[in-house]
Order: sequence, then structure tokens, then C-alpha cells
Amino acid sequence: MKIRKMQEFHGTRDFITVHATMSAMFESKIKKLKEQIRKEKLDAVFISSVSNIEYLTGFTNFSKDEREAYVFVGQDFGYIITDGRYSEAVKDKVFHLTLFERGHNKLTEELLKKHKKDIKNLGIEEDNLTVAEFKKVKKHFKNIKHFSVSHLRSVKTQEELEKIEKACQIGDLAFDYILKKIKVGVSEKEIAGELEKFIKENGTEFSFPAIVAFGKNSSVPHHQTGSTRLKDGDIVLLDLGAKVENYCSDMTRTIFFGESSDKQKEIYQVVLEAQQKAVEFLNSKIKSGEKVTGAEVDKIAREYIKSKGFPDIPHSLGHGIGLEVHEHPSLSPKSKDILKEGMVFSIEPGIYFPDFGGVRIEDLFVLQKDGLKQITHSSKELIVL
Amino acid sequence: MKIRKMQEFHGTRDFITVHATMSAMFESKIKKLKEQIRKEKLDAVFISSVSNIEYLTGFTNFSKDEREAYVFVGQDFGYIITDGRYSEAVKDKVFHLTLFERGHNKLTEELLKKHKKDIKNLGIEEDNLTVAEFKKVKKHFKNIKHFSVSHLRSVKTQEELEKIEKACQIGDLAFDYILKKIKVGVSEKEIAGELEKFIKENGTEFSFPAIVAFGKNSSVPHHQTGSTRLKDGDIVLLDLGAKVENYCSDMTRTIFFGESSDKQKEIYQVVLEAQQKAVEFLNSKIKSGEKVTGAEVDKIAREYIKSKGFPDIPHSLGHGIGLEVHEHPSLSPKSKDILKEGMVFSIEPGIYFPDFGGVRIEDLFVLQKDGLKQITHSSKELIVL
Repeated sequence: MKIRKMQEFHGTRDFITVHATMSAMFESKIKKLKEQIRKEKLDAVFISSVSNIEYLTGFTNFSKDEREAYVFVGQDFGYIITDGRYSEAVKDKVFHLTLFERGHNKLTEELLKKHKKDIKNLGIEEDNLTVAEFKKVKKHFKNIKHFSVSHLRSVKTQEELEKIEKACQIGDLAFDYILKKIKVGVSEKEIAGELEKFIKENGTEFSFPAIVAFGKNSSVPHHQTGSTRLKDGDIVLLDLGAKVENYCSDMTRTIFFGESSDKQKEIYQVVLEAQQKAVEFLNSKIKSGEKVTGAEVDKIAREYIKSKGFPDIPHSLGHGIGLEVHEHPSLSPKSKDILKEGMVFSIEPGIYFPDFGGVRIEDLFVLQKDGLKQITHSSKELIVL
Repeated sequence: MKIRKMQEFHGTRDFITVHATMSAMFESKIKKLKEQIRKEKLDAVFISSVSNIEYLTGFTNFSKDEREAYVFVGQDFGYIITDGRYSEAVKDKVFHLTLFERGHNKLTEELLKKHKKDIKNLGIEEDNLTVAEFKKVKKHFKNIKHFSVSHLRSVKTQEELEKIEKACQIGDLAFDYILKKIKVGVSEKEIAGELEKFIKENGTEFSFPAIVAFGKNSSVPHHQTGSTRLKDGDIVLLDLGAKVENYCSDMTRTIFFGESSDKQKEIYQVVLEAQQKAVEFLNSKIKSGEKVTGAEVDKIAREYIKSKGFPDIPHSLGHGIGLEVHEHPSLSPKSKDILKEGMVFSIEPGIYFPDFGGVRIEDLFVLQKDGLKQITHSSKELIVL
């Protein structure tokens, strides 16, 4: 039938357009990777971390628990290495790299050997490659250095920013939605289940299992959502994020159920001010054009909380986010990461009293030319339900 | 009120009983670990893989994507090493190991240094420890060898078997349930969503994102469940598992929608026979008391499929399962793993024709004294819906 044929034609054209755009995006990433390889005076890099492989290939089906693929790139070649389970799927989706299928009797080492003579200095991910893998690579290359894809990844493209912002929007909607479900007797797991249902109904998924902590559980920064039921007077800490086309969001809000004591209000206020101080500090640095490290920002919030007589934050002030919930840059006491335009990261101070409770407020920000842009928008007014 | 107090009392008693049982279970694991350390002439082991840390501690809240904990065990000490984010939660749940909190300025290395003088030979997980971590460990220890927890893990205790069998039962129920939902026009993602809903309603979760593959997608062994919609005459491949108290199940069934050609029926029959041949071979070896390796069993099914003129299986015949979907032993062409009593593994032959379709049948088996016991029970009759 004619109409059907027209649709098919359009379908094919769209398919080709989408593929061309996708390919261009990934080719540009590989181009930047090659620039970095040159800059670091390497001849090739051997990439093993699953999220970096996702970043460089767009192929998101490899297991994070197993070693199913590598990416091997030099100035004149670029391979995605995987096995028979994946080669069909990779052929359909990855056009900008050559597929090298390592079968039962065909090892990655064959490929390494083939390029041996052109490679004096090889880059590996020291924080990802295992000792066993390193032993195999070392057989073929003498000069092996650490190479990091994280700096490349930390500065986001416009497409990436859009995905993260969409994920933030869904997180905001989920927060609005869940406020109505918070009632005496509900369990942490039930709230997490409702959140997940909502996020799925919006066509996406959690970027990590949501942390729902009631009462004294809120004092455990990485509390495992459990069967605790909500009582009057409980603190409710919600730490959640969505994932849009593999790009993550992350946000924390702390609310008070039934009542909030003066002490709790004070803690809330200090946490909020600590976040604001960090933002103001960073904005002033951006405006003056001075370089600023993750450690410097971390210090501002940390010192402010301590100056008010509260215990030190038992975690980093913040973290970059993208394909992974936690990625470069780090806003922590020892972080030398320079914060740059296009980076997206959390600022999330917290005050915790073991066996009593805790307050954390977390938002995501994009570092723009003229200052920070907050991209999570749920209210930070003190909420008493 | 009195009644409430009685409940509280019972609650406490149950709590204490459960804790004592849990502690005994984990103490026995550490005892076995120490035996293995002695046997391998090591003085201590430094464990970094998250699933092994879960296995040895029972603490399941560490992220698999980040390095948040280690376990360090010698004959006279046993530590769980983590940071401030987790120490409260670990204190509440892990009683059989000493908590070592590494703060911002307190590195794991301090602990390694402390035990340096008593440790001549240290075991590490070469297939898990990263090059960067190894460099730090190497500063303190000269003799470092590979150590594997997987042999310890592969032989399951009665408690572990019960959890895996429960997970299999839920998988079987999910398969029965989903047959009713398979209709023209439904998408792979919708079927996966229905499966997940069912599994969650049964109080558990997926052990991995279910693979739902329609038509030619079934030719991709690790197909990423997508938006393809079901048509008459399609093959439907379902690969799914549940997780009960962190123990996994895994099963694959292939069914025919609308019709099945003679060729498809023949392929199905050969895959089923390949599985049966492997089971019979293994049973005969168990009865004769001969040692048998994963490679020997893999070969039986693989050769059978090839002898019938079909392409070689592009993946392993099977894999152990437990806290992880894929663990020791491996039933693959190169596997020297000896199959032993108490091991649980899959046997999953498959025949695939790229761009046409594939058939895989997968079941889990426990190796018992008198032979294999199949623990997934969904029908393997050829189903045409």
C-alpha cells in the first residue's frame, strides 16, 4: 500500500539521519580522545572501564560486573573489542570504531601484538585495569602510563547537558509526587517503590536505588532503604535520581514529619547556608576568572558547618555526574580537580548525629561562563508535613 | 500497654536469635577462608571485589561501581575497611570482623603497615585489584600472590541453596505469568516491564535486566530488550532471573508465536538434546566418581550441535551462580574448573543465525552426590502460542 510505503521511506530517512548524527557525535569524542593521547605523548590507549566504553561508543549493554569489552585507540586506528555474545549488537550500533571479535581461541593479545611496533607509550586506566589484565598487556608493551578519560567526560556537550537536565526535571516531579505519599506507618521501601513506579511511568529509571531514610536512619549517609515505618516527629531524608538516555540526575531533600524541633530547624538552616556559601564562593571565583579546585569549594562548606559547632561532613561536598552518578570532578578535601565551564556536579553538605538523625541538601549545578546554574529545582524551604 | 510490650519483647528475642545465627554463618565462612589462606601458604589476604566482600560480611550496600570497602584477613585478625558514609551501617550489621574506618586523612595503608611485620606472603585478587591499588599495596609487601575466593563461594551451603531455589521458583512463576501477556503488537520492553512488576509483587527483584528478544533479535545472545513489537511467526526468547536475599536465579526459554516452521522445530529439538546430552554425561561422571571439568561438559553439548550441522555456540555452555549471576565454575571450552558437590550452575546451549533468529534453553542445576538436580522447572516442551 502506498501510504505504508511512504512511511517506510520516511522511516528509513530518519534512521539514516539519526545514525549520521550519532556517528558524528561519537567521532567527535574519538577525535578529542586522540588529541588528548597526543598531548600526553602517548601512542595509543587501552580503555577498560565500562562507563568510559559507553561514553566512547554509545553502546550501553555491557555488564558492569564482568569484562566484556575494551576500546583500543591510536592515531591511526580505533577498535571496540568484544566477544561473540555482543558482536551482532555492536555491528548494529557502533560505526565509528572497528569491531574486533575475540573468540574462544582469538585473544585480545593478538590485536595488541599487531600494533606493537607502532606503539612506544601506551596509556591504560590504572584505576580500572586489573592486575591480571595488566600482566597480559605488559607482555607486549614496555612503557605503560596512566591515562584518564574522566577529564574528557567531565566537560559536557550540549546534548549531554540536555539529557541531565531532563533527568533532573523527572527527579523534581518525583519529589513533588512523593510528598503526597508520606504518611504515618508507611515504610521506607514502600516510598522507594512508589518513587520507582513514578519514575518508570515517566519512561525512565532510577539512576541509583533511592535512599529513603526515616528517623535516626537519616544519620547514616548511605542508609540502605529498609522496612522502618514512619512515625510522628521523624526526619525524612530522600536521595534520588533519574536516568535519561543513560545520563543521571541526583538530588537530596530532608523534610520533617509532624513537627520539627528548634534544634532540627537550626541544623537545616546551617546545611542550607553551607550550600549557599559554597555556591557564592564558586560564583565569585568564576566571575574573577580565577582557577578554583574541588578542595577549595569543599572547604568553604565544611568549615562553615564546623564554625557553627556541628560535626564535620563525613563525605565529600560533591561529585561530578553524567553517565555515572559519581564521576570527575570531585569536590572533596583532597581534590585538585579544576572546576571548568561545562562541568556538572552536586553540592551536598550534610550534618549527621549517629542514632539521632541527619540533614542533607543536595542539588546539581552546571558551571557556566557567568556562574553556576542550578538544574534541580525542588523547593529548599523547610518542609514540615 | 501490655500487649505492645510483649510484642516488643518477642521482637527483641527474635532479633537476637537472628543475629546469632547470622554471625555463626559468617564466622564459619571466615574460618573456611583462613583454612584456605593456610593451605595456599599465605599469611593474609586483601579482598577487593564487592561480591566477595558481600559473601564474607553479609553487608550488601556497597556500590559495585566504586571502591567503598575492602576485607583484610589473616590468621589472627579480620577487618572490614570502609569510610564514614558506611561505618554506622556496618557497625549495625557486621559483628564478626573489626571495622576499620578510613577517613579523609586515614588511609588503608596505615592498617597494612601495622600488620606488615607478620605478613610474608599476601594474597590479592589479581582479577579484581586495580593497577593503582596494587601500586599502594606493593609498597608494603614484597611477596604478593593471586588469591581467589571463588572456589570457596562455588560450593554452596544449605542456606544458600534454599535461597537460590526460592529465586528459581519465582522465575518459574514469572514465566507462567508472562505467557498470558504475549500478544501481537506487545513490545519487548512491555514484556520485560510486566515480568519486573510480577517479580516485585512477589517481594523480590530481577537478578539482571531480563532479556526479551522477538523475531530476529533472538539471534543476538545478549540482546538489549527494546521497542520491537511482536509479529505473527516470531520467535520469543526470554532470559530472566530473580534474586532472593541476594542469591540469583537464571533461566531461558524460547517459544514460538503463531507458528513454528519445521526448521525451527528441528533447531529447538537439537538445543534441547544438547542440554540433555550434557546432563547425561555429567551424571555418568558423577556416578563413576571420576573428576570432570567444565570444559569436558561444554564440549559434549558443543560437539553435538556441530555434529547436527548447526553453528558453534557463540558463548559458554554454562556458568556458576550465587551472589552473582555469573560466578565460578565456568562450563566453557577452556575451563579447568572441577565440578564438585554443592555447586550450582547453568547449562544453556543455543543455536543462532544472525538476522534470522536463535533458540536457547537454560536451566540451573545443583551437583549432588548422586547426580544433577534441576532447580528451574518451567516446561521445556516446544510451546507454540
